Amino acid sequence: MSNKIRLGILGGGGDSLIGVLHRVASAMYDSYQLTGGVFNPDFELNTGFAEKIGIPTDRVYRDFDTLIEEELKLPETERMQVISVLTPNFLHFPMAKKLLENGFNVICEKPMTTTYEEALTLQEIQKKANTVFAVTYTYTGYPMIRQMKEMIASGVIGTVQKIDVQYYQGWINPIIHDKEKRAATWRLDPEKSGISCCIGDIGTHAFDMIEYVTGMEVKEILADLNYVYSDNKMDVDGTVLLRFSEYVKGLIRTSQIATGEENNFAVNIYGDKGGLKWEQENPNYLYHLTETEPLKVLKPGHAYNSELSLDGTKLPPGHPEGIFDSMGNIYRGVARAIRKEFCHPGEFPTINDGVRGMNFIEKVVESHQKGNTWVRV
Amino acid sequence: MSNKIRLGILGGGGDSLIGVLHRVASAMYDSYQLTGGVFNPDFELNTGFAEKIGIPTDRVYRDFDTLIEEELKLPETERMQVISVLTPNFLHFPMAKKLLENGFNVICEKPMTTTYEEALTLQEIQKKANTVFAVTYTYTGYPMIRQMKEMIASGVIGTVQKIDVQYYQGWINPIIHDKEKRAATWRLDPEKSGISCCIGDIGTHAFDMIEYVTGMEVKEILADLNYVYSDNKMDVDGTVLLRFSEYVKGLIRTSQIATGEENNFAVNIYGDKGGLKWEQENPNYLYHLTETEPLKVLKPGHAYNSELSLDGTKLPPGHPEGIFDSMGNIYRGVARAIRKEFCHPGEFPTINDGVRGMNFIEKVVESHQKGNTWVRV
Amino acid sequence: MSNKIRLGILGGGGDSLIGVLHRVASAMYDSYQLTGGVFNPDFELNTGFAEKIGIPTDRVYRDFDTLIEEELKLPETERMQVISVLTPNFLHFPMAKKLLENGFNVICEKPMTTTYEEALTLQEIQKKANTVFAVTYTYTGYPMIRQMKEMIASGVIGTVQKIDVQYYQGWINPIIHDKEKRAATWRLDPEKSGISCCIGDIGTHAFDMIEYVTGMEVKEILADLNYVYSDNKMDVDGTVLLRFSEYVKGLIRTSQIATGEENNFAVNIYGDKGGLKWEQENPNYLYHLTETEPLKVLKPGHAYNSELSLDGTKLPPGHPEGIFDSMGNIYRGVARAIRKEFCHPGEFPTINDGVRGMNFIEKVVESHQKGNTWVRV
Amino acid sequence: MSNKIRLGILGGGGDSLIGVLHRVASAMYDSYQLTGGVFNPDFELNTGFAEKIGIPTDRVYRDFDTLIEEELKLPETERMQVISVLTPNFLHFPMAKKLLENGFNVICEKPMTTTYEEALTLQEIQKKANTVFAVTYTYTGYPMIRQMKEMIASGVIGTVQKIDVQYYQGWINPIIHDKEKRAATWRLDPEKSGISCCIGDIGTHAFDMIEYVTGMEVKEILADLNYVYSDNKMDVDGTVLLRFSEYVKGLIRTSQIATGEENNFAVNIYGDKGGLKWEQENPNYLYHLTETEPLKVLKPGHAYNSELSLDGTKLPPGHPEGIFDSMGNIYRGVARAIRKEFCHPGEFPTINDGVRGMNFIEKVVESHQKGNTWVRV
Repeated sequence: MSNKIRLGILGGGGDSLIGVLHRVASAMYDSYQLTGGVFNPDFELNTGFAEKIGIPTDRVYRDFDTLIEEELKLPETERMQVISVLTPNFLHFPMAKKLLENGFNVICEKPMTTTYEEALTLQEIQKKANTVFAVTYTYTGYPMIRQMKEMIASGVIGTVQKIDVQYYQGWINPIIHDKEKRAATWRLDPEKSGISCCIGDIGTHAFDMIEYVTGMEVKEILADLNYVYSDNKMDVDGTVLLRFSEYVKGLIRTSQIATGEENNFAVNIYGDKGGLKWEQENPNYLYHLTETEPLKVLKPGHAYNSELSLDGTKLPPGHPEGIFDSMGNIYRGVARAIRKEFCHPGEFPTINDGVRGMNFIEKVVESHQKGNTWVRV
Repeated sequence: MSNKIRLGILGGGGDSLIGVLHRVASAMYDSYQLTGGVFNPDFELNTGFAEKIGIPTDRVYRDFDTLIEEELKLPETERMQVISVLTPNFLHFPMAKKLLENGFNVICEKPMTTTYEEALTLQEIQKKANTVFAVTYTYTGYPMIRQMKEMIASGVIGTVQKIDVQYYQGWINPIIHDKEKRAATWRLDPEKSGISCCIGDIGTHAFDMIEYVTGMEVKEILADLNYVYSDNKMDVDGTVLLRFSEYVKGLIRTSQIATGEENNFAVNIYGDKGGLKWEQENPNYLYHLTETEPLKVLKPGHAYNSELSLDGTKLPPGHPEGIFDSMGNIYRGVARAIRKEFCHPGEFPTINDGVRGMNFIEKVVESHQKGNTWVRV
Repeated sequence: MSNKIRLGILGGGGDSLIGVLHRVASAMYDSYQLTGGVFNPDFELNTGFAEKIGIPTDRVYRDFDTLIEEELKLPETERMQVISVLTPNFLHFPMAKKLLENGFNVICEKPMTTTYEEALTLQEIQKKANTVFAVTYTYTGYPMIRQMKEMIASGVIGTVQKIDVQYYQGWINPIIHDKEKRAATWRLDPEKSGISCCIGDIGTHAFDMIEYVTGMEVKEILADLNYVYSDNKMDVDGTVLLRFSEYVKGLIRTSQIATGEENNFAVNIYGDKGGLKWEQENPNYLYHLTETEPLKVLKPGHAYNSELSLDGTKLPPGHPEGIFDSMGNIYRGVARAIRKEFCHPGEFPTINDGVRGMNFIEKVVESHQKGNTWVRV
Repeated sequence: MSNKIRLGILGGGGDSLIGVLHRVASAMYDSYQLTGGVFNPDFELNTGFAEKIGIPTDRVYRDFDTLIEEELKLPETERMQVISVLTPNFLHFPMAKKLLENGFNVICEKPMTTTYEEALTLQEIQKKANTVFAVTYTYTGYPMIRQMKEMIASGVIGTVQKIDVQYYQGWINPIIHDKEKRAATWRLDPEKSGISCCIGDIGTHAFDMIEYVTGMEVKEILADLNYVYSDNKMDVDGTVLLRFSEYVKGLIRTSQIATGEENNFAVNIYGDKGGLKWEQENPNYLYHLTETEPLKVLKPGHAYNSELSLDGTKLPPGHPEGIFDSMGNIYRGVARAIRKEFCHPGEFPTINDGVRGMNFIEKVVESHQKGNTWVRV
């Protein structure tokens, strides 16, 4: 009998990439056993998928409600302990809500909900439920991001005075200029995606990352979004000016029409004693700039890294790990929390990060609609 | 008797770095002979400097007015043909004005003047004088910037839809946090530097570069500057949102408190068919992004480059040229214009670029002071 | 009842890094179920480890012979289908031999054996057994290495005319200069490591990689090894000149005393139509050089890549995968072979690669000992 | 009357790139005045060229002997002080010889002569003449190479234990496979180029660089050259194993058929305390590797650099200088030596470097012809 954590998954069937990411991540530290779930609303596809990925079909359920009902009948020692919610965005809230209300731990894809109000509701429920709740801002699992966080916390770059985070992609370019394609893309349909495309999908990563690595809170924002065509209802590009205090400023730059860019997420934090820079596409390099010393390039697995950073590296220096490993670190953090083992602060993003992210999206759109004016977050 | 163009220089004596840059640049294509000038307001230092750099002292003058007076006495075949103005910013306008009025060609350091009004005046005078007038936005002389300009012009990246230009330095960080130092720095003194430090010094490079490589005009701007301390009167960091038309947007990001950054000027232009990226600190690489092909890295000296780009490269591929060579290209362009030889459009920045730059500075400060609102350029 | 392939593992217990690599790799494509094995010669540690990684202990055996005996008692539908051999090098041969003789499929760590003779014996046995046998030259699983292989095969760089492969590490530097440490290191003990340290450990990767990506065979070699101290019995650095034919030459450069290098494995292949370059520490970039076009940088997941390359990428461009993913691709290839599904040539290294590698090691040492003379491979 | 050093140039007329390089370099520190020379054996082209580059033609001579004769008639205060020899290789020796015998300082392009014997003769003459003699191994003028030299000298990487220098180009590829082209290329004609093409042209740079940065002497070499076709008489690719002492080894790798490479000269030096790496195509980065600290990237112009390095940088950090600036540093060193000012050791390569280089070429060819055996240098 395996003593792994029993994991269920909602969504992520078929060719879902997010499904692959979560399954591999869950396997990385020998902590989870995928026990069942609802991978697909079509029951035949659902069980077919379970067979394809080689798991028993007895706990592959017809639908979400059945899953809850049947799992609750099982003794706690057999019941799924944590459920990953990988369904379309609008289902995150009702599913997560019911899971929490029934005592399950939850791993929820981002955006956590479709509105800030839902996010606040969920936060209330989670406080009462007191189970583990993680939101998968995947990029915070990278060892060099954890290293950045700890270097800033320990004062290596002094007082933060300038923040500049970029998240540029180009994938909407071939869609946006074709009237039919843009009408047919769910990401550009407010009914399916909420009030924002670019900010909602990638701007939130940037926002969460800033608060994660600096430990600071964004106080005010001024946003300028671009919809490119008058009949397009969703932003595909946007710049957000940030204020942390009167004289500490920053910006988030996001685009999905930066043609040719893949997933160019870059974090630049400058303090009065130095700067730190990181790029997601080359995640194993952390650049430390100072005024008087040579540029330093930190890499994972070296003894000079912080404990939290080293904890997220499986192999010695020179053996590059990637985004699966980053998500694996988040899953391991959740496993530790579920097992009530020691879990470093920052091992996984919590419901509070999810709530902040939803607030950010709404405020950005508000600022833009008010004619690019300052709005409090 | 040399048939080189007779060059005079104002300023640039002593340890002046800008002086070195201009002297070396003038020598690069065997086109100029440094004939004299006023390198220093102190006459002894002035002639001492001339001796140090090994030029005859007979045309090293006591002051600017004497230079004009004495040179005009010489026959045209001996008279200085072009004067480089490297003096402190507030002297650019009166000197350039008088030079133009007396029929000299002028190479003027940027910022061209201290106010937009002065710039307009100068432009009027230059139109009448009809002599060559160059403003040394040095970076436009790089071969890969010229290549970028021509690729955009020929439609390689399609219609431009997103522009993001960064100019980050860190040199003011050790000054700004020290009350005495910031009071003693002329760049932070409006009397000496005009109304802007960061935008005036480096923001204008970014602005000029955008208009240079895209051939487009910025229509509206919204700026947020940072002065860091309430007793500091000059911006040391600023972000400027740009509008080229309703749906074509961009931004300029500048900072002098991005601690540890040296001279990190980066140009990113995205069109509906691809993107082009360039970084000043590695100026011999031009990155061409598309959606369906591998990333292409163009380098100077290859036959695939445009004629204007190739014209600015002296050695074969693999022999890196740098910022002196970039300025050398601008000087060569001026030489061609003076000699009325064929000179490609874009070989050197003209007085119009200088005028646009002064307008940009004033509008940025206006937008910031009005509470970060949109202002027409 | 899971329909995953039943995997057993020999070795890889405790803090073994290679154990982590194989377990994670086996999980990446939902293909394997770790069923048991012998993780540690100490039975208590063995079962303790099984519990730690959360697998049932009923098929965690006391020793290798017991494993064979007990598994053979099980019906074929329950029996382990493939066994990964991660034990110390000298055990690879006897274990692999017995596994093959008893009809198991085998995944064997490199070096496959300790002598070329053993390797030939194993090859004979495998031919009869006709089961799947993979040697984990991990680096051949990277998507961009697969892309390189297919580009060369399809003539993109023309006829190969120059090969230069580097594998530099620095980890022996702090050991080699300390008499006690070097005496205590098993890698430097011929009894435990065979006749070569540097060539045996990393030179074989370089050799295998060359033959993998080019499809060519090394014909002759001339080697110069460095033992650094007269009392040190094992090479820690070596250069090997290669001949593929009279006028097609190359070299392998290896070092474990290149202080500060981590795992700097770099492959450079030049043909008469272009060159291809790759570095293991940045495995998601393949550089394609030609004479007349810009440098091209290929990245994983793009449609321009070959089918074999794309097959080894799980996420879209811009989501960096790493060495675990590379090993995962090899495991998936083995899974396909076991299931007799279509498996591309080159999905995993075979016993023939293992045999060639052992021959290479012996010939390199022979060339060195004969005074750096040419030796046929 | 200018007090610059009076410079004459032999060769370098027409479209000569080496001519441009020397003229620009001579101008960089305001030290030289190009006074005349013999730019071309055709007198009309010679004076035409002088006019084109804007210098007076009164000291542009019909031929070399006339130059010597006429200049000697001038008083020492007017006579050319230093002559740069940029003529075809076979003329270096007779010209340099006569210049020395007549008391001129000499700047000589590499290879200094066509045989080792000539080199030794020249060295003898120079000792007697006691004038300044520089050989333009251009790359030693880069600030980060000077920094590397001084870091090694001061023990930063400890005792050197491994050296690996690469010089890869691809320009002979399109020639070598075409029988007519290879017959028509002077570099591949032993009558015009001496006994070696690849080693003579670029291998000597690698050899000189090693001895320059490490201060060590190569003791023995073993070489394997590639001529690619049996009718081709000159090496176009070659690897040279190096021994500095019994246990300190290294290698030089050169190629002119590394298709697509431009001028990829890379220097890697490893000691027992760290490593230093540099690449000519990105000359402003010096990588310092250690075992326990982050990778350090040194750049020119910072106070952490050595005096010799800083002396070779004209602008502040972030303003990239290139190969012209590197040659400019060598010219400045020569100027200081001529003026008997303080000149750091290592500011320019001397006749001894030229002699060592010629010896290296002959020994490499000898080793290759003897069947790739060890030969003492």
